[in-house]
Amino acid sequence: MCGTDAPDAAGPVSNGSHASKANPASSPYQNVNDFISNVARFKIIESTLREGEQFANAFFDTETKIKIAKALDEFGVDYIELTSPVSSPQSYEDCKTICGLGLKAKILTHVRCNMEDAKKAVECGVDGVDLVIGTSSFLQKYSHGKSIAIIKETALEVIQYVKSQGVEVRFSSEDSFRSDLVDLLTLYKAVDQAGVNRVGVADTVGGATPRMVYDLIRTLRGVVSCDIETHFHDDTGCAVANAHSALEAGATHIDTSVLGIGERNGITPLGALMARMVVTAPDYVINKYNLKALKEVEELVASAVQINIPFNNPITGFCAFTHKAGIHAKAILANPSTYEIIDPAIFGLTRYISINSRITGWNAIRARCEQLGLKMTDDEVKEVTAKIKQMADIRPLAIDDTDSILHSYHIELQKKQALQV
Amino acid sequence: MCGTDAPDAAGPVSNGSHASKANPASSPYQNVNDFISNVARFKIIESTLREGEQFANAFFDTETKIKIAKALDEFGVDYIELTSPVSSPQSYEDCKTICGLGLKAKILTHVRCNMEDAKKAVECGVDGVDLVIGTSSFLQKYSHGKSIAIIKETALEVIQYVKSQGVEVRFSSEDSFRSDLVDLLTLYKAVDQAGVNRVGVADTVGGATPRMVYDLIRTLRGVVSCDIETHFHDDTGCAVANAHSALEAGATHIDTSVLGIGERNGITPLGALMARMVVTAPDYVINKYNLKALKEVEELVASAVQINIPFNNPITGFCAFTHKAGIHAKAILANPSTYEIIDPAIFGLTRYISINSRITGWNAIRARCEQLGLKMTDDEVKEVTAKIKQMADIRPLAIDDTDSILHSYHIELQKKQALQV
Repeated sequence: MCGTDAPDAAGPVSNGSHASKANPASSPYQNVNDFISNVARFKIIESTLREGEQFANAFFDTETKIKIAKALDEFGVDYIELTSPVSSPQSYEDCKTICGLGLKAKILTHVRCNMEDAKKAVECGVDGVDLVIGTSSFLQKYSHGKSIAIIKETALEVIQYVKSQGVEVRFSSEDSFRSDLVDLLTLYKAVDQAGVNRVGVADTVGGATPRMVYDLIRTLRGVVSCDIETHFHDDTGCAVANAHSALEAGATHIDTSVLGIGERNGITPLGALMARMVVTAPDYVINKYNLKALKEVEELVASAVQINIPFNNPITGFCAFTHKAGIHAKAILANPSTYEIIDPAIFGLTRYISINSRITGWNAIRARCEQLGLKMTDDEVKEVTAKIKQMADIRPLAIDDTDSILHSYHIELQKKQALQV
Repeated sequence: MCGTDAPDAAGPVSNGSHASKANPASSPYQNVNDFISNVARFKIIESTLREGEQFANAFFDTETKIKIAKALDEFGVDYIELTSPVSSPQSYEDCKTICGLGLKAKILTHVRCNMEDAKKAVECGVDGVDLVIGTSSFLQKYSHGKSIAIIKETALEVIQYVKSQGVEVRFSSEDSFRSDLVDLLTLYKAVDQAGVNRVGVADTVGGATPRMVYDLIRTLRGVVSCDIETHFHDDTGCAVANAHSALEAGATHIDTSVLGIGERNGITPLGALMARMVVTAPDYVINKYNLKALKEVEELVASAVQINIPFNNPITGFCAFTHKAGIHAKAILANPSTYEIIDPAIFGLTRYISINSRITGWNAIRARCEQLGLKMTDDEVKEVTAKIKQMADIRPLAIDDTDSILHSYHIELQKKQALQV
């Protein structure tokens, strides 16, 4: 594989389709200017230190929590959500410690919707309290055993308390997509009137689809006037798309965690959401978030929970900007926008063109020859390309194998030319 | 972590929300019975041996190709797509070999839309030829340099040839979402009238969103009468959701690869698509595909291209069915559907409840005590839970640490009781 710079000065930056450009409307099928859509003005509630702590491998000591909180703050997330201080004595202490760091991001903690938990949360000095309670028939029956009437009564009492302390408050249902629609809207309307800052919609089991999300959020947008936060689990692979659909329908806040770590296979990953949103709303995302820090934040968290960054991770997966097929490589060399929707430079990364395979093409090989300073005619490049494809048809080639073939072919050429002269 | 069986006989199988049940309408927000939707009658075009060969790490020798083709056939995919026989002499031989295996799945190969490539494809004995050409202004300008009129003329000629050989034919544009809508519809209408079996829509750069997909496919559904195949890259994390939206809008075929391997970070993964569709259309998916073989197919391909299965892979990621937070574990023990949208048993897998963390709860600990045969009252369980949370607050605990705490606490209890007697 060989790194390539932008092949021409008019390459990735000035091209109309790369995400670095002011006008994102590279597709005739996308309109980011719907009056209801918040794709170009959303906020991130980063929950690595809450949802992420529910990841099977996660154990964050105080020092690690502080490192992660600072890294997220430098990345530019709007909110950082912490594990409930009721969970354990150390969780309580850590919550206080992080509130005391003086970060730009607002600090939230996520607690059950009862007075005792809310009081502990406020004690810690958080900027906001995220209240949650299950509203699906499953959770009403098998979890807390409370009716919607009781949930509402408790919620209003807790909300009044948190507001009286001058602290932001969110009320979220859990498993919202398996909750009765009328129950949900009744509750959300009541807490909106009680003055919550946000209501939360959660796909706790990860079963929602983008159209389900759009429909529910669109309906809710007509019922409440407060902000709408959304939380999507990734059990069925839709957590990024669901977040995008929620914003299109009027949601204002998206919950993320670094690499998506959380219960089971986790939630909307911060990095994948950035990949999605930088294509939809490049100006907003590039100006607001420190995208070049993404890789470092991901490496910090991956190391803290002892996982590898998935090979297919958007943006930072090892081959996210690697081009291999000959037909792709040829076009990428002429203009990267042909096969790249995101300019890797925005994230401080570079593209690679893999030339050592049987599906390579002569345009990619010609570019490599130029990098190596080997002068050949197009016919000669085509001939050596055939040799490379022949070798790569037999066994895997490394880049130095390919380079060796190019060099030895070039030496042969020079010998022939010397003889002719 | 401790494996749990279904906690009660009426557990995962008979529960109305798990995907194993006939009625998938666990959500009031989802309707799978739209007349236009194909979510319960889609087909899979499995492209690990074509798109997958464009993955940076992929080098499949003949033996590996045969193994993968057989495994996919046993899994029950409808089509297997192979690298163009024009790519290299070995690709040509391998295509012939796989066509000769007598698999139930139909064999396709994917070639550029020209007569030479189409003839090579037919020579190999494939069941179908997938023709592709770039239609976006980018690809017209920087790749093949052909106008839409020329593309159409060539396409019709090649289609007539393939049909005359009694072979299935698909015509696909490339980078469809950045192509001019009128150009696209004009081309698709012409090839439909020429009698193609399928038209293909490809999000080659991975920039489409579910609503863009729905809109384009819905429009196309009204223009052509043939089948509609769709191909989604995952650069912005939407490849699974886009496939679902395409089916809702009337697409009939979805391209997949095992673990999503392909150019850059790949396409819709077979496993993640199964996770999505088994929730949307459980009867269809469970009866049609050999879901218990998924893990084996994924392991075969992961080993062939030397990658790890991502930690957060739907279904087969190491923690996809691990529950950790106390509030989750409690409800899962009462009824797995509370926090699981998919019954792991459908895929031949089991769930785990992690109890060795500070966010565990006493209901999970009680279940572990029961598994270990340690009799305790609820108050005693609560007391030992506090001890476990205290330890887990200081350092990561392993399951044997937790079990040791439970055993030693239980011995203390027995000593006390002996003294009292």
